[in-house]
Amino acid sequence: MTPAFEALQKQLKRIPGVGYRSAERMAVHLLLEKPDSGDDLIQALSYAKDHVKACIQCGNICEEELCSICQDERRSGSGQVCVVEHVSDLLAMEKSGAYRGLYHVLHGKLSPIHGVGPEDLNLVSLEKRLVSGDIKELILALPNDIEGEATCHYIQDQVKRFGSVSVSRIGFGLPSGGSVLYADAVTLKSALEGRQEF
Amino acid sequence: MTPAFEALQKQLKRIPGVGYRSAERMAVHLLLEKPDSGDDLIQALSYAKDHVKACIQCGNICEEELCSICQDERRSGSGQVCVVEHVSDLLAMEKSGAYRGLYHVLHGKLSPIHGVGPEDLNLVSLEKRLVSGDIKELILALPNDIEGEATCHYIQDQVKRFGSVSVSRIGFGLPSGGSVLYADAVTLKSALEGRQEF
Repeated sequence: MTPAFEALQKQLKRIPGVGYRSAERMAVHLLLEKPDSGDDLIQALSYAKDHVKACIQCGNICEEELCSICQDERRSGSGQVCVVEHVSDLLAMEKSGAYRGLYHVLHGKLSPIHGVGPEDLNLVSLEKRLVSGDIKELILALPNDIEGEATCHYIQDQVKRFGSVSVSRIGFGLPSGGSVLYADAVTLKSALEGRQEF
Repeated sequence: MTPAFEALQKQLKRIPGVGYRSAERMAVHLLLEKPDSGDDLIQALSYAKDHVKACIQCGNICEEELCSICQDERRSGSGQVCVVEHVSDLLAMEKSGAYRGLYHVLHGKLSPIHGVGPEDLNLVSLEKRLVSGDIKELILALPNDIEGEATCHYIQDQVKRFGSVSVSRIGFGLPSGGSVLYADAVTLKSALEGRQEF
């Protein structure tokens, strides 16, 4: 271990999902095993940092003012806005092909323990969109955990002022292919609560 | 998805252990959620690329000619050299505290399928070390797979010319805390072959 190596490892470890060992392995790869990939990464990251920004309307990644989804008139007509925690959630939703409305990316969820309050989330622009009257339906696709729940309640409270907007939360329960036998207690609880008449 | 975003994701995906989804999540984090961490990463990686290099003797990471392990006289006296595949293996070995000799990092293993031949590995400097006569014992700590095996045989063949050097391979079998019940067939085979008289 050398100081420069440790400094790089520390920066890699700050990325979510990257642990101590992965950061070490990544650093070795970038510095010794494939030094070219280190140069390429610096270049791609610098370029992307200069060009990629958040869509001023929904918070999705884009290289112009508005992202490609907000620019798509076939999608904006629906008045449906799906609220997600991260851009990755939006991308997953897009890949599924199950949704054809607009999005709003919060870039996080309320978490008093981690010091994340409403002002840290992309909520100002959501209010702006509500005020503009373009939103008819808000679909909350936030995680099935306490922080996701708190964020949903907060948004529901905010939306109350806009009587005409309907708010729903995506369903929770057994995933496709899942069986009751292997589901954890919280999933089963959600599945029971989310039961629908046949 | 934007072109600059996709280019960054592609570079991240080239790092071993980083899949499509992780690369996506990492890129979003570096560009939108914590833009500072993107700058810090570029800086740390550029600095490390300029300062970190492979030790000319063993291939470990270092910022001088020789790494700190090769410079340590208490360690070089033993004449023991442990051959590992990656720098990460060396670091894992060091953390265990189980070994106090020197190392030799191959930066890979022989793999005809992936087009990795002896010339792609850090073998020239190993031969140099054998010729110099400083190595008394070679401990092969390479993976327990076909490619690891092939690499061991190749090195054993090379070492034959240096009659006085003893070569061994680390033991394979049940890991600490492991039980026969949950061990896979290859592990059990290795454990049986590696049985030692009581």
